[in-house]
Amino acid sequence: EGRPLQVLTFSLDDDQHTVTHINEANLRQILYRHDVKDLPVVVLSVAGPFRTGKSFLLNFILRYLENDGADWGSEASMQAAEGFHWRHGIERDTVGMWMWSKPFVRTMPGGDRVAVIVADTQGTFDKHTVMAENTRIFALNALISSQQVYNIKEKISEDVLQQMHLFTEYGAMVARTLEGQKPFQNLEFLIRDWEFESHAPGAAGGQEYLDSILAISDDLPTELREVRLWLQDCYEAITCFLLPHPGKKVTKKEFTGNLTVLEEDFREHFVEFVSNILSPERIAVKKIGNQNLTCSSLLDLFRTYVDAFNTAELPQVSTLFQATARVNHDAVRQSVLGSYRDAMRRIAGPGFPHVAESHLRNQHEAAHANAISIFESAKLLGSAAQKDHLRADIERELETLWTQMQAYNRSKDILRGMR
Amino acid sequence: EGRPLQVLTFSLDDDQHTVTHINEANLRQILYRHDVKDLPVVVLSVAGPFRTGKSFLLNFILRYLENDGADWGSEASMQAAEGFHWRHGIERDTVGMWMWSKPFVRTMPGGDRVAVIVADTQGTFDKHTVMAENTRIFALNALISSQQVYNIKEKISEDVLQQMHLFTEYGAMVARTLEGQKPFQNLEFLIRDWEFESHAPGAAGGQEYLDSILAISDDLPTELREVRLWLQDCYEAITCFLLPHPGKKVTKKEFTGNLTVLEEDFREHFVEFVSNILSPERIAVKKIGNQNLTCSSLLDLFRTYVDAFNTAELPQVSTLFQATARVNHDAVRQSVLGSYRDAMRRIAGPGFPHVAESHLRNQHEAAHANAISIFESAKLLGSAAQKDHLRADIERELETLWTQMQAYNRSKDILRGMR
Ligand SMILES: Nc1nc2c(ncn2[C@@H]2O[C@H](COP(=O)(O)OP(=O)(O)O)[C@@H](O)[C@H]2O)c(=O)[nH]1
Ligand SMILES: Nc1nc2c(ncn2[C@@H]2O[C@H](COP(=O)(O)OP(=O)(O)O)[C@@H](O)[C@H]2O)c(=O)[nH]1
Ligand SMILES: [Mg+2]
Ligand SMILES: [Mg+2]
Repeated sequence: EGRPLQVLTFSLDDDQHTVTHINEANLRQILYRHDVKDLPVVVLSVAGPFRTGKSFLLNFILRYLENDGADWGSEASMQAAEGFHWRHGIERDTVGMWMWSKPFVRTMPGGDRVAVIVADTQGTFDKHTVMAENTRIFALNALISSQQVYNIKEKISEDVLQQMHLFTEYGAMVARTLEGQKPFQNLEFLIRDWEFESHAPGAAGGQEYLDSILAISDDLPTELREVRLWLQDCYEAITCFLLPHPGKKVTKKEFTGNLTVLEEDFREHFVEFVSNILSPERIAVKKIGNQNLTCSSLLDLFRTYVDAFNTAELPQVSTLFQATARVNHDAVRQSVLGSYRDAMRRIAGPGFPHVAESHLRNQHEAAHANAISIFESAKLLGSAAQKDHLRADIERELETLWTQMQAYNRSKDILRGMR
Repeated sequence: EGRPLQVLTFSLDDDQHTVTHINEANLRQILYRHDVKDLPVVVLSVAGPFRTGKSFLLNFILRYLENDGADWGSEASMQAAEGFHWRHGIERDTVGMWMWSKPFVRTMPGGDRVAVIVADTQGTFDKHTVMAENTRIFALNALISSQQVYNIKEKISEDVLQQMHLFTEYGAMVARTLEGQKPFQNLEFLIRDWEFESHAPGAAGGQEYLDSILAISDDLPTELREVRLWLQDCYEAITCFLLPHPGKKVTKKEFTGNLTVLEEDFREHFVEFVSNILSPERIAVKKIGNQNLTCSSLLDLFRTYVDAFNTAELPQVSTLFQATARVNHDAVRQSVLGSYRDAMRRIAGPGFPHVAESHLRNQHEAAHANAISIFESAKLLGSAAQKDHLRADIERELETLWTQMQAYNRSKDILRGMR
């Protein structure tokens, strides 16, 4: 009945810039269906690192929605579920963003009808994907979802939080929300393969664990506070669910998706997670301000965001090393050029009169030599080629500054016009 | 007989800068032992994210060395091993760097005797540790080891490689190696909880997997090539071992360290890993150039590197977001100031004569307004406070530029002296 439709893909242009492609036809097919287009829309998506069981999970979410939660937990409900493509192995599977072709119409306790859209995403940090693309994957997911499941393994460590910090800040920059509204709605950390006894699997244990991670204690280093404050500011609500390891059968080729061969504690909590996240108390309609978004308006939102990511002059996103090296190189450049400028200003600055060309040149030569020695003793990250490139850059700028100093000096020569 | 001694710790000073502390007394106690101080030294260490079974592993390495590999794999050898402190739970355990108090003297096939030093390290990315400290932990580990085990979970993903890229570049900056020598020696990726069927557990499967990850294919995005080229340039040798999941008992409080209650495939490969990494073919003496380092010289190396990390003006290391935001802010600053400078130079540049003060002021006001509009339409990462801070910075620099322009203009006034 339903099938997965690809709604977003990414590519690299000739300058290695990430381009986002929207599949308007597929999105329209889903969101403009006459029976749902004007209904309030719930957007449930799963994002996270590659090869972490996201698509596998979503197929059970689809089954739950297909049966409207009937018989959930029965042996029938645990048979292998199909839907979004999933598979074993080390190679990434899902590419881009996919959406289930059939929105699920549900009636809320109050009587309102909503349309539930389910979306699957490309995993982050595989070896085909640059950081700008990883950033857009997560950001778009956060921007268009009302319920974003962040599916990670084992624990919430600081590098996970650091990545989220960048991804969410990037998304927040283009978010079309009203004044005072947070850019994103509900985030659920789903921790797979949870193995610590300190917190019990499930939602309550998840909440305790999350609180312990996000707590801002007095001894928390300042550098680590920022992301904790930011996450509370950028998501309406953040929750957490701990899911045990399914057991080693889960990645064997014989395993075709039947939950009954997996471990009991996994199965129990897996089933609980699905019913939990789609329960009336948890179901969240996508909102802009206080207005519910409809399915058809969701298409506008997609277009707006994909457009922004493709055309706006957004901050450059690269790897941890490249960004750090850039900051390092900029700091050294400022230091070198600043030392030359200061030295030259000491004899030929704005308040000083014209100085003899030879005197200026002497000062230049000393200032230039000193500047270069600052460069040579600086600690620089990067390859020899990158350092040479920075040096060439700096030499060019020093040359420019020297030319300007000479010209300014000449223009101060009040006797010149008279000679 | 032996016991763990803490040799390095870290702290944050009042300016939130990371300070590295060396425990000279403990290091001397180990490295200046009369029976080992002049022996060639092998330094085997384990580094990696927190809570990944590093200390646990090391205790079996200690047992292997204690018995000189005798009876390895017997049931006796699989009993719970003590040594470095290890424990269950979500909180980090090992802090700083620890060294076994007793170097193990081994006779190599050729007849030479070497002293094997075993070191345990603080895990990375826990919530007590800033990036500058994470960087130093890994870098110091890489710098002082002849065999560094990088202990990670499940797979080698791009974020792991990105982190290594920064950590190793940082270490390489202070490495005391000879021309043409690589900064680090042997790296072994030890993948814990390996679960993909595509590659068999063990060393051969590990090598295949490693090759597939580090391969530079035509379709590998440029951004991802850098780290692959760099890693080959900074380590003498890189190998990989895949270790299966021990089974869910491993994190239960009842588990006190006895391998026999863990899963067969884990036990088998765990035992194989230990004998493998300490085999005569794999044992590596720490070298500087072609010279073997002795135990006592290792102490000098420690001092040199800790000193460099504490005193040298090294590049600032912060989080992925902070570095990215810094690059973004610097780019916007350059753009804004550059536009003001260009606009002013168009009427009052080096080659131009003095202009009337009112004319200059008009140009300034237009240039200033345009610069500020560039700022206001720029996409900026960061909080409102950070953006205000950048804006205040930029306003100050614009003010300085204006003052300089006015002064330069006045100094071009050839009639002034005459009025
Ligand atoms: N360790 C682990 N593996 C899982 C879990 N759930 C599914 N898997 C396996 O993970 C692999 C990848 O599944 P898939 O859903 O395609 O992952 P995705 O790339 O995140 O969408 C398959 O071998 C699944 O059987 C889980 O909770 N833990
Ligand atoms: N999942 C998993 N846990 C392990 C493994 N080896 C040990 N552990 C458990 O991991 C936890 C942390 O062990 P520890 O050695 O203190 O970790 P460290 O912080 O990396 O030094 C303990 O509960 C161990 O029993 C393994 O191979 N896989
Ligand atoms: Mg998938
Ligand atoms: Mg430890």
